[in-house]
Amino acid sequence: MRVAIVGATGAVGHELLSVLEKSSLQFDELLLFASPRSAGSTLTFKGQELTVQATPEGAIDADVILASAGGAISKAKAPAWVAGGAVVIDNSSAFRYDADVPLVVPEVNGEAALRHKGIIANPNCTTAVAVLAVAPIHREYGVKRMIVSTYQATSGAGQKGMDELLEQTHMVLHGKDATNDVFAHPIPFNVIPHIDAFQDNGYTKEEMKVAWETRKIIGDESLKISCTAVRIPTLRTHSEAITLDLERPATPQAVRELLARSAGVEVRDDPGGKLYPMPMTASGKYDVEVGRIRESLVFDGGIDLFVAGDQLLKGAALNAVQIAEYLQEHGALKGKQRA
Amino acid sequence: MRVAIVGATGAVGHELLSVLEKSSLQFDELLLFASPRSAGSTLTFKGQELTVQATPEGAIDADVILASAGGAISKAKAPAWVAGGAVVIDNSSAFRYDADVPLVVPEVNGEAALRHKGIIANPNCTTAVAVLAVAPIHREYGVKRMIVSTYQATSGAGQKGMDELLEQTHMVLHGKDATNDVFAHPIPFNVIPHIDAFQDNGYTKEEMKVAWETRKIIGDESLKISCTAVRIPTLRTHSEAITLDLERPATPQAVRELLARSAGVEVRDDPGGKLYPMPMTASGKYDVEVGRIRESLVFDGGIDLFVAGDQLLKGAALNAVQIAEYLQEHGALKGKQRA
Repeated sequence: MRVAIVGATGAVGHELLSVLEKSSLQFDELLLFASPRSAGSTLTFKGQELTVQATPEGAIDADVILASAGGAISKAKAPAWVAGGAVVIDNSSAFRYDADVPLVVPEVNGEAALRHKGIIANPNCTTAVAVLAVAPIHREYGVKRMIVSTYQATSGAGQKGMDELLEQTHMVLHGKDATNDVFAHPIPFNVIPHIDAFQDNGYTKEEMKVAWETRKIIGDESLKISCTAVRIPTLRTHSEAITLDLERPATPQAVRELLARSAGVEVRDDPGGKLYPMPMTASGKYDVEVGRIRESLVFDGGIDLFVAGDQLLKGAALNAVQIAEYLQEHGALKGKQRA
Repeated sequence: MRVAIVGATGAVGHELLSVLEKSSLQFDELLLFASPRSAGSTLTFKGQELTVQATPEGAIDADVILASAGGAISKAKAPAWVAGGAVVIDNSSAFRYDADVPLVVPEVNGEAALRHKGIIANPNCTTAVAVLAVAPIHREYGVKRMIVSTYQATSGAGQKGMDELLEQTHMVLHGKDATNDVFAHPIPFNVIPHIDAFQDNGYTKEEMKVAWETRKIIGDESLKISCTAVRIPTLRTHSEAITLDLERPATPQAVRELLARSAGVEVRDDPGGKLYPMPMTASGKYDVEVGRIRESLVFDGGIDLFVAGDQLLKGAALNAVQIAEYLQEHGALKGKQRA
């Protein structure tokens, strides 16, 4: 079986290589694609140097294509990849809201992936991190309302986002004014409540993605969700403060126990021991940290909690590879016969 | 009339001097006090060098004492200051919850200050910033529930908090691990959902202060408030994402107009022009920036908004001076006859 990565040289591409090295996914060959500018460069995979090729115009001779080169490229090229016989696991938002494209977090709705018609969408990173904590609570207690405030890292904008934070912070520490190119305003020591484009309703697209995608993954269109998405000067891992109004009352201890036996989650909730979710501890970790689990003071029987998840991993690369693993484990990924 | 500052050499003390320079408060003399360690140092006020004295054991011969040297010093010494005839405007949390101590934000409940018995409390900085936006909405629409997530600057822990952020960020940029002394964990490029001590209910004292103090200032004990207080790597200005459930439905435009005519608030809400509240623009500003005003997606007729306020100013020094101005304007501050 042959796996291809499109967008291999970006921040998520880098993580895809690293996650694939440790993955249980069985495949014979890995192809790497990126923009023509990166063609000819090499990346190391399991000790071997692999050469990056320019993404071709038409089909790619692979069984699984992990696409992470942005929405425009996915939109333009995925139909040809599917026509060529590949299953496309797409990290962009290009197809997430199409009715016949499953939007999948394997721990939550893996079975949806089996109903694909060639394309499977990977959710927005903020959604993927939140839904790991919220889905088990929804199954057990029925979430009616969900209020989310995010603390999003600069790597949400890729490697260039992290570079801008580091370079501009260096400028500020040397007494110079910070400038901005990637972000809407200078990011060092600042907070920017603006991620992705503003919609007519005053919410950003990033905020609406959390609402739209959480409902689709959980499979409950009645769920009410309000989000404030905020960029802060961190490098990686998105944190989120979440307040939940529930159908059936929960206690913090019951939620702690529920999440402790839920896949993809690490309960990190010992305030006395100064243990709670933080980018410092969640970065590089596959599991999403969940803590600060406490009774809501605004909803009877509701729950407040705080999550931190490495959005380059669970929010992107890891989730994509886990979708491929899920397909293979369920016999839904068979390599083509090649000469 | 004589004004004294206790804690003159700290981050808030520094702002008190600057705010007093521009204040309409009429007084003849300014006395500066701090710990014995700082005694003998000088600070500039209106071009004059003033010598800092060690805070005495007993009374201080001043008409107004602006106290900002921490809860322990206020608790221990304020009774003697009051006995000596001074009005104490206290920036610590020592007296905020005493039934006979008014907790005052002049734009919201200035008249409460006139009922003091010697001590007037200045609210917690996070509360002061939020309440300027929320109180006018409460008066017009009746707030039932308020959900707050904070993005708090390191200067909430004083000058030493800012120093730790700058020094440790420098370490990280030079490839070294950050350490921590002021904060519970290293703060550079990190997020710490832990400010002040944890309470039995799983909330921190900082989070409960927002609930307790907002209710006291607004004068409505039925208001339900849930807060998540989070330290982030910024220098000054606290930002807050706030979701409001209202008795009577509001529209974003009506709230924008209401806040535009409210004191202490600058409506900064033009997403198309990339105008919204941010530490970068709110730092050093007396008004609290309010923006991202939009319909709540979880409460019918409710409102989501975002605020950013320089917590060293409105959250501390500015509010304290404004309380003194309010007392003087209402004839409630008369200088003693001195020989």
